[in-house]
Amino acid sequence: MKTYRLEVAITPREGLLDPEGKAVEHALQALAFDGVSRVRVGRLVTLEVSAEDEVSARAGAEEMCRKLLANPVTEDFSIALAEA
Amino acid sequence: MKTYRLEVAITPREGLLDPEGKAVEHALQALAFDGVSRVRVGRLVTLEVSAEDEVSARAGAEEMCRKLLANPVTEDFSIALAEA
Repeated sequence: MKTYRLEVAITPREGLLDPEGKAVEHALQALAFDGVSRVRVGRLVTLEVSAEDEVSARAGAEEMCRKLLANPVTEDFSIALAEA
Repeated sequence: MKTYRLEVAITPREGLLDPEGKAVEHALQALAFDGVSRVRVGRLVTLEVSAEDEVSARAGAEEMCRKLLANPVTEDFSIALAEA
């Protein structure tokens, strides 16, 4: 068993409303940051997983996303292997 | 002016408590995901910025982090250029 460090990026699905992103966008504009658009706020979960190999580490993380980390209706996720 | 798409990763600073990460870690263990550790939950802000060049786009995003997006006491941030 090796330890893998994974970064899971969870983002609001393209095309769906993202009220938090809109609020941040308006706040940035109120702070005179012009030219800012399409702000979206997601979550970045980093975790370490013990697994036999990289493939099963990723498979485990995908299952975590489906079961707990991401909302399958409104969010997309992507998993990247970081240095352990 | 060009449009740059930036990904800003905001993470709880190493060494500081991350109650949300702890809660997620316990929930994953309760769902029988063994071998999960060091879970930390941050935010991933994606945004588009109009700027003269990549350097000023990044500089703008750093200022946004310092002024609004990140808590300078408890969080670190990193900025990556995504495809526009």
